[in-house]
Amino acid sequence: MNAPLTETIGFLALNAGSSSLKVALFPAEGDAALLTGQAERIGPEGRMVLKDSTGAELALPPGDLTSHAGALALVIKAVKRHFPGLRMGAIGHRVVHGGLDYAEPVRVTPEVLEKLIALEPFAPLHQPHNIAGIRAAMAAFPGVPQIACFDTAFHRGQPFVNDTFAIPHRYYEAGVRRYGFHGLSYDYVTGEMKRIAPHLMEGRVVVAHLGNGASMCAIHRGKSVASSMGFSALDGLPMGTRCGQIDPGVLLYMLDREHLDTAQIRQILYNESGLLGLSDGLSNDMRTLEAADSPAAHRAIDYFVFRVQRELGAMAAVMGGIDALVFCGGIGENSRTVRRRICERLGWMGIEIDHGRNATNATVLSSEFSRTTVMIINTREDLVIARAARLAAQQEAVAE
Amino acid sequence: MNAPLTETIGFLALNAGSSSLKVALFPAEGDAALLTGQAERIGPEGRMVLKDSTGAELALPPGDLTSHAGALALVIKAVKRHFPGLRMGAIGHRVVHGGLDYAEPVRVTPEVLEKLIALEPFAPLHQPHNIAGIRAAMAAFPGVPQIACFDTAFHRGQPFVNDTFAIPHRYYEAGVRRYGFHGLSYDYVTGEMKRIAPHLMEGRVVVAHLGNGASMCAIHRGKSVASSMGFSALDGLPMGTRCGQIDPGVLLYMLDREHLDTAQIRQILYNESGLLGLSDGLSNDMRTLEAADSPAAHRAIDYFVFRVQRELGAMAAVMGGIDALVFCGGIGENSRTVRRRICERLGWMGIEIDHGRNATNATVLSSEFSRTTVMIINTREDLVIARAARLAAQQEAVAE
Repeated sequence: MNAPLTETIGFLALNAGSSSLKVALFPAEGDAALLTGQAERIGPEGRMVLKDSTGAELALPPGDLTSHAGALALVIKAVKRHFPGLRMGAIGHRVVHGGLDYAEPVRVTPEVLEKLIALEPFAPLHQPHNIAGIRAAMAAFPGVPQIACFDTAFHRGQPFVNDTFAIPHRYYEAGVRRYGFHGLSYDYVTGEMKRIAPHLMEGRVVVAHLGNGASMCAIHRGKSVASSMGFSALDGLPMGTRCGQIDPGVLLYMLDREHLDTAQIRQILYNESGLLGLSDGLSNDMRTLEAADSPAAHRAIDYFVFRVQRELGAMAAVMGGIDALVFCGGIGENSRTVRRRICERLGWMGIEIDHGRNATNATVLSSEFSRTTVMIINTREDLVIARAARLAAQQEAVAE
Repeated sequence: MNAPLTETIGFLALNAGSSSLKVALFPAEGDAALLTGQAERIGPEGRMVLKDSTGAELALPPGDLTSHAGALALVIKAVKRHFPGLRMGAIGHRVVHGGLDYAEPVRVTPEVLEKLIALEPFAPLHQPHNIAGIRAAMAAFPGVPQIACFDTAFHRGQPFVNDTFAIPHRYYEAGVRRYGFHGLSYDYVTGEMKRIAPHLMEGRVVVAHLGNGASMCAIHRGKSVASSMGFSALDGLPMGTRCGQIDPGVLLYMLDREHLDTAQIRQILYNESGLLGLSDGLSNDMRTLEAADSPAAHRAIDYFVFRVQRELGAMAAVMGGIDALVFCGGIGENSRTVRRRICERLGWMGIEIDHGRNATNATVLSSEFSRTTVMIINTREDLVIARAARLAAQQEAVAE
């Protein structure tokens, strides 16, 4: 149990996925959260765990976890119960798609909300949940600023050749572009790199965000110049259950020859592919695959490693070489095997890791002889969202 | 007019595209053709030009150019008229898809023909024309061996990670794989490289076949280990009118939001995309785009160059570096600008070209200081087909 905090200002960071809701409550300063947790498998089997700053699980009032709105209502109830004196300063929301307009966080007004709704066709599996989260937070905390933080924002401003597909140009003008995602994570990593290795951040860095979702970002002088993800969250690297790069001819084959409809194809490419599909249904979780040591598991891991290597070569070509490679995300931060295997055959680009450092998940993995620095940064999307919320509240206070 | 050649044995190489038919007639030995030519725009506006070994245009008997069968009948009539004493030794056919079974050319038997027909779903725009060409040649030259030469054959035997997509493994088992194409061209270039630079062919070579169709192939010790083309002829590099790599989410968007059907999407991705689409309909021809010097033309060229650079980096990652880069195909052999621009930003991988050599389309383009050798090989798919036909006829004669 937390002691009631009077006059504390809180900043809530919300991250609504397709069947999950991650939350973190921050005080006015510092990187440590007052409360963290998540709802998973939102639906008939939904469950939620919230923890206080010591990591102790909080008792939850009864609630409805069959919907995102229900999950958020439960979070709000818990916050009000455990932090009765808390005044909410601002609420930050991860929003997957900011389209062409938003290159940084924005306070949600009715006009902004309309724009975000108009972007739903570009991210049909995520954007509606993000918007539902914003609406629910608006209703629960009227008058409190709601700040939308976009996964696409970090990548806006990429050169045209990175932003387009080779299809009729009218599509580009209609917004069919390579937006790139995981921008909050790249934003955090960039900030951390500027703090601990500023000279590297002046050069050419590839960040590999490898988790259940996975992408890579080429960052030149602190700016995103390429992302492996494109228009949707399907492209680029293989993921837990998503396919990554695929020949469009395969979709035409599924349509013409297998007579699948769009919903069925979507289900395959988003939910039955990636590590899960390659391993013939064994698992979408790298930890399970590593433990399994079966041909199906090897297939999935081999392919994952291989595609990261390919993308790294492609991003080096985009920037004319690389000065640093940074791993983050669940797999990037924790899988020694995957990191070792990715780096193993990259001597040609000046990469050599120290196996001892790699085995302990050290911050710097590269050996003293490596021309390219290899690092791990534990990414914190929640903190990026909270910082944006704090900043917005501050700006508001100044304006008043 | 050629003087009638008595007792000459001829070997015909046929290459049927979706609206074209290229032909070359070779004698029993040597690389010089007795007759070359092609039918273009097969259909109501079809036209055909045939030339003799001196390059003089041959007078053609009247004929029907509204179909592939009609075009082939006209070729056969012309051959019989201009080479009345010629005995046909064998006829070689470029066949786009050899599936999993064919890693080298094969004499077409009724069983083989059945297998090739079964592969039509994998290459619906090309395979039916290839098969029509074989049938027509069989009817015109009964008893003469018909040899199928596959665009996929050179790539068979690639490692699993190069051969699969990250979708449910049952697709891999059903033959949905990264077959790769342009194999006849890569086969020719590999042979030439073995002849003129054998030490390079023992290493790691990337061949960039850049024409109206375009792909790249990573060749390690003479074997294909990766191709930028995948399951269909759509993937990888942008082409004259084909899209190359594209986010599968774009197809889902076209289906769900634009309510396009498969035929419409196929039309866009195969015929209205690539250089043509990027340049907003200006041209699918690199020469026209280079001459145009407009923003739309620059867009298309910039993107083309950029994607070749990206793929080169990815292929270097597959092989752990590269020892040689070889250009071939219409653009690769002739566009100084595109070659220069591709190589311009590749110093990081040891590539430096000599601008004088590049300006004259020399065989070796790299400077004396380049760590990586850069070359041009004028590719000859017709000769690869004719050689396969000659070899088959020879083997048949030995067997008899």
